[in-house]
Amino acid sequence: MKKLKMGMVGGGKGSFIGDVHRRASRIDGMVDLVCGAFSSDPQRSLESAEELGVAPERAYKSFEEMITKEKELPEGERMDFVSIVTPNHMHFPPAKLALENGFHVICDKPVTLTLDEAFDLQKVVKKSGKVFALTHNYTGYPMVKQARLMIQNGELGEIRKVVVQYLQGWLSTAVEETENKQASWRVDPKKSGIGGALGDIGTHAENLTEYITGKKIEKVAADLSSFGAGRVLDDDGNILLRLEGNTKGCMTISQIATGEENNLGIRVYGSKGSIAWYQENPNELTAYWLDKPKQIYTPGGNGTYEESTAYTRVPPGHPEGYLEGFATIYRSFVKEVVSVMEGNAISERPDFPTIHDGLRGMQFIYASVASNDNNAAWVSLKED
Amino acid sequence: MKKLKMGMVGGGKGSFIGDVHRRASRIDGMVDLVCGAFSSDPQRSLESAEELGVAPERAYKSFEEMITKEKELPEGERMDFVSIVTPNHMHFPPAKLALENGFHVICDKPVTLTLDEAFDLQKVVKKSGKVFALTHNYTGYPMVKQARLMIQNGELGEIRKVVVQYLQGWLSTAVEETENKQASWRVDPKKSGIGGALGDIGTHAENLTEYITGKKIEKVAADLSSFGAGRVLDDDGNILLRLEGNTKGCMTISQIATGEENNLGIRVYGSKGSIAWYQENPNELTAYWLDKPKQIYTPGGNGTYEESTAYTRVPPGHPEGYLEGFATIYRSFVKEVVSVMEGNAISERPDFPTIHDGLRGMQFIYASVASNDNNAAWVSLKED
Amino acid sequence: MKKLKMGMVGGGKGSFIGDVHRRASRIDGMVDLVCGAFSSDPQRSLESAEELGVAPERAYKSFEEMITKEKELPEGERMDFVSIVTPNHMHFPPAKLALENGFHVICDKPVTLTLDEAFDLQKVVKKSGKVFALTHNYTGYPMVKQARLMIQNGELGEIRKVVVQYLQGWLSTAVEETENKQASWRVDPKKSGIGGALGDIGTHAENLTEYITGKKIEKVAADLSSFGAGRVLDDDGNILLRLEGNTKGCMTISQIATGEENNLGIRVYGSKGSIAWYQENPNELTAYWLDKPKQIYTPGGNGTYEESTAYTRVPPGHPEGYLEGFATIYRSFVKEVVSVMEGNAISERPDFPTIHDGLRGMQFIYASVASNDNNAAWVSLKED
Amino acid sequence: MKKLKMGMVGGGKGSFIGDVHRRASRIDGMVDLVCGAFSSDPQRSLESAEELGVAPERAYKSFEEMITKEKELPEGERMDFVSIVTPNHMHFPPAKLALENGFHVICDKPVTLTLDEAFDLQKVVKKSGKVFALTHNYTGYPMVKQARLMIQNGELGEIRKVVVQYLQGWLSTAVEETENKQASWRVDPKKSGIGGALGDIGTHAENLTEYITGKKIEKVAADLSSFGAGRVLDDDGNILLRLEGNTKGCMTISQIATGEENNLGIRVYGSKGSIAWYQENPNELTAYWLDKPKQIYTPGGNGTYEESTAYTRVPPGHPEGYLEGFATIYRSFVKEVVSVMEGNAISERPDFPTIHDGLRGMQFIYASVASNDNNAAWVSLKED
Repeated sequence: MKKLKMGMVGGGKGSFIGDVHRRASRIDGMVDLVCGAFSSDPQRSLESAEELGVAPERAYKSFEEMITKEKELPEGERMDFVSIVTPNHMHFPPAKLALENGFHVICDKPVTLTLDEAFDLQKVVKKSGKVFALTHNYTGYPMVKQARLMIQNGELGEIRKVVVQYLQGWLSTAVEETENKQASWRVDPKKSGIGGALGDIGTHAENLTEYITGKKIEKVAADLSSFGAGRVLDDDGNILLRLEGNTKGCMTISQIATGEENNLGIRVYGSKGSIAWYQENPNELTAYWLDKPKQIYTPGGNGTYEESTAYTRVPPGHPEGYLEGFATIYRSFVKEVVSVMEGNAISERPDFPTIHDGLRGMQFIYASVASNDNNAAWVSLKED
Repeated sequence: MKKLKMGMVGGGKGSFIGDVHRRASRIDGMVDLVCGAFSSDPQRSLESAEELGVAPERAYKSFEEMITKEKELPEGERMDFVSIVTPNHMHFPPAKLALENGFHVICDKPVTLTLDEAFDLQKVVKKSGKVFALTHNYTGYPMVKQARLMIQNGELGEIRKVVVQYLQGWLSTAVEETENKQASWRVDPKKSGIGGALGDIGTHAENLTEYITGKKIEKVAADLSSFGAGRVLDDDGNILLRLEGNTKGCMTISQIATGEENNLGIRVYGSKGSIAWYQENPNELTAYWLDKPKQIYTPGGNGTYEESTAYTRVPPGHPEGYLEGFATIYRSFVKEVVSVMEGNAISERPDFPTIHDGLRGMQFIYASVASNDNNAAWVSLKED
Repeated sequence: MKKLKMGMVGGGKGSFIGDVHRRASRIDGMVDLVCGAFSSDPQRSLESAEELGVAPERAYKSFEEMITKEKELPEGERMDFVSIVTPNHMHFPPAKLALENGFHVICDKPVTLTLDEAFDLQKVVKKSGKVFALTHNYTGYPMVKQARLMIQNGELGEIRKVVVQYLQGWLSTAVEETENKQASWRVDPKKSGIGGALGDIGTHAENLTEYITGKKIEKVAADLSSFGAGRVLDDDGNILLRLEGNTKGCMTISQIATGEENNLGIRVYGSKGSIAWYQENPNELTAYWLDKPKQIYTPGGNGTYEESTAYTRVPPGHPEGYLEGFATIYRSFVKEVVSVMEGNAISERPDFPTIHDGLRGMQFIYASVASNDNNAAWVSLKED
Repeated sequence: MKKLKMGMVGGGKGSFIGDVHRRASRIDGMVDLVCGAFSSDPQRSLESAEELGVAPERAYKSFEEMITKEKELPEGERMDFVSIVTPNHMHFPPAKLALENGFHVICDKPVTLTLDEAFDLQKVVKKSGKVFALTHNYTGYPMVKQARLMIQNGELGEIRKVVVQYLQGWLSTAVEETENKQASWRVDPKKSGIGGALGDIGTHAENLTEYITGKKIEKVAADLSSFGAGRVLDDDGNILLRLEGNTKGCMTISQIATGEENNLGIRVYGSKGSIAWYQENPNELTAYWLDKPKQIYTPGGNGTYEESTAYTRVPPGHPEGYLEGFATIYRSFVKEVVSVMEGNAISERPDFPTIHDGLRGMQFIYASVASNDNNAAWVSLKED
């Protein structure tokens, strides 16, 4: 087993998502964190490095410094890939620089601050010949894999309807006026882009929909709201969906759904059967049928495909959670990087979200905002 | 206790909803079925009467005959009210005739075939001085009452968002081409009106939304579908909602949601708390709070209002169901009729759905169809 | 359809179980309440009669008077059967007198105050040639019928293990010292017999176990407690079970399980499959299998037997509850009475609990108390 | 942050629990696997080492060799502690040798093959001055911590009743006759000891009961079964419990509960409130109250103690699972080892299960078997 060396951009002390990436990267024992530009504050970056067991000389002041200095290190010592866990406006610059300097990249979502940046990044990725993964982590759950496979295999028949939700309540009050750093950048268009909840959680809902159904969202009609006083970005939205092949759908997202924690859920209705999955209880997949009682699938449990069981790490009844789903993205990314390092061609359709998914997400944000600006008229997501 | 005498229009042998009305009317021991025009087929009407313990001479050939003949009977013997359980196109004629001849009426929903009929009936009701109730039965559940009261009392703060669903799967296949009588008239615009799923279940979702939130739906943007081959009426829909006072919402309804049985559910999100209720497990109301763990209310259970407990018939933990909720509409209707018979004025806001709710439902159907015909543009529900 | 005339013993104003019996008897429209000895206080009996629409001359001062006077009435006018809804110590006297005077009887559980009375009553029933039903109402639920049928048909294979619970919390505090009439007689051995929770809810758990598995409980080893200060009867118990054919089991019952409402539940594990059912959500039956995902059966839903669907009154997804399950016992009892009135022989195994079930319940109480008195040693239930 | 070096005994290719320990040890980034005696087959041990990134010269042929050789390595290079993940009969020898040679130990449960060994090991631990942890991993879940704290703080009042279950179905058929290595040693008394399901899952149920309630089990009355043909050890049991302070309980365990996956659950009933927790949905803790609606606590969610939130790694609504709970045991163990390495005294009551818990588990197994051998008579667990 080859272990890869990871450099991290962002994720200093107190960061939520940086800590998640690190834990996820460890679970399968395939990654070592060797360096980082953990914070724009050099002292903070140094302290983070110490806490994380990273050598102080590899705690860099900036991502530019990290990429430059690491590149100078001998092969086998320098980092193999960069993990980007900064706010949205700081995705594109380090991703571009890393790729252009020969480093593979795994990046948090949404992929960039703007749609234009996403198009640019797509070109950079293509040109670089490096692996780029986007952490739409919810696609890493075994029951999400199972659902996707059941649809691919035609078990549900023709897909007619999708109902998808992503409901949180953490912005129900004006937390951005407290010490909450998460909240303050999430509501700031300079750091988040033109989507608020849309970018943070709407893109997850969009990605999960396309991943599970295997169908693209073609059009949206979006009614967005900003319930928080003074907020310029959306903190809530209800969106009609039209997908390829006459599939209809609706999506509801919110960060002001008081009391909701992280209630991502999807139901897909087909002519022969249907499925329902909810992230807060991710080890259950409910399947409904035309003429059989509904069934509860569990990871590795009776009746699941071998292809979905491959994504479990423990036996049935031993719940896996958010970190394990996230770890699956890392594992698949690492496998692909190792394969490429061994001289193989980059996979056409790797087993993790790519720049393509990133672009779809940005298209979704832009189409939704455009629709909302036009009184919820239908707006098409452009092909990419 | 005064028992009232009921005459029934429709509900002959094999009728689903007629049987429901009869059972619901019995539970509280306040109603005797004394006569009926159970079927357009006189022989069938007679057989139904026999089965139901109704005297053969009071098994009428038509509602016209029933109303005429019963009126001639001495007070104390003749029926006190008419229960209308026919398909939609046969709501208005008997309702009008009964009211004009001095009989109170309880009628299934949607109230009429067309919006115009609904307006006409509103006038007839007003002029008649009789009681008119519409069986939006889901408002009879104790936990629905509890939810409404919590919102009225401000426990949830300002209401921001509603997510409502009514999902069934019984029209997933072409059951209208089988012997299924229900299905055949439900998909027939001559008998159902311009709404398919919209009229059958959409009006329940609309009524429940307005009942629980205490807010009117002002506008809809509707994307309707007919997945069943050859169907002219909608069998599925996704609808954006705007309610009074900057409350946003979305509704999804379907009769082609394979495997769903009768999944009516509503979630209401306020600035201080939220609630969720699902008809298939009606004895639980979940409340979410800004800073307390979520709570499960049960009928008559800890923490419920006395005003909602008044609607239970058994102690906590003894589940009540669909028939009991339905019976509550009957009980409230009977109490009002008795009150009016005793010389009291008709209540301004009685404790059951009225012609007003009927009109709201028709407005909802018409606005949704108009929106769908105009590419899901916003259409306002007219005030009535 | 023949409607039967019911006389009631007990169930005066404010009675919980009397009201339940009356509602249950109405749902199917097969029973009219025509007379009653509703209370030992004649004035109260009269008031109850008025409230219930019973003629004042048929509101009797005692069950003796009721049985004597009704017997004198002409056939077709007098009551057909007696419903006994009094505390346990008042089951045997009216049951015996009614049967000996030619009236059928339906009686609440446990069947009598003492085991001796139960043996006596068994003889009386046999000699009378009349129908005797015991309202172990939980056997009336469609999903309980489905579970029993699945086991009868061998779907679960050889039955190995039963886990049964009946947990309530209403005696967690000293409610018997308040105005709570229920509580005061339930904790009084003169009115309840030698079992407290054992008699009230333990017999339901025992009956449900034997009904669903089709196996008799052969031995018990019981550890009973009285947590309430000053209580002489058990308010809690944990009981090991041995059933016919090497089936093992355990039962836990409580009325001091703080916060529990009416949590009766049973799980049965077989060599090929298992089932779980919980009374508080009675419209779900979960089936587990060796090699298939678990399934959720619903009343009348996909995959259920026609024989269980026959016990539903509404379509799938329209929940039925406690009253409907109770009504099913009444309906089956009425059908049997009508059959006997029409000259047919009494059924060997009618579709409702009988004096046999009553005796089993008393044997269970007596064996459990004997075991507890002997330090939880095994005690056999005697054959009857 | 100091990272500790781990040596592993057992856990070669294909081992379930070895893999679990390794993943759990990685999540918090505090442990490096540096050596192992992964298998009694040296070739297999070598292959495992390679797969795990362990240097081939540190893939030892036996635990004896590992302990000897590692001891010779310079401090800072040699392993800091030993993780024992072998079948039960191979717990005591390596644990004893490691402790006697100055290595800390973390060991799977049950602690030893026999009760005598457990007593011996207790002495060895005491004498060694080293840290010994036992992986009763279910005590690592945040909601288990929350439950324990609520009881410690008196929120539930006086604890009256415990209902605990651990139900699996994986031994429903004769899997020990297939290639299933797990199954073959689990049913073999030479490798498992005198308890089958008792040792494997009963000790978890026992430990969880004592951990959450803070009360010792004083007596058991056990009815054990071996449903699998030819099995000499129990694969099922129902056990009455008496705990300190007049708390009653019952436990049901099974490995032949067809269709159950890993259904460990516990309910604790107190005079003021109650709790319920189920391992298969570990992110919910239900609390019941005398006079408030029931509440659902979630890790880090509203109303939880800071002391339980300290055990979460992600925000509310991001489910954690089996591996994270397991990792918590490792983390607490590592912190204690580091503390001891820094010269602090060994904690009296560290935040992980110890040899004391191991002895309790063995006492529980022995008392249960003795009770079963004596027809389920009460047997006391000896004090240790």
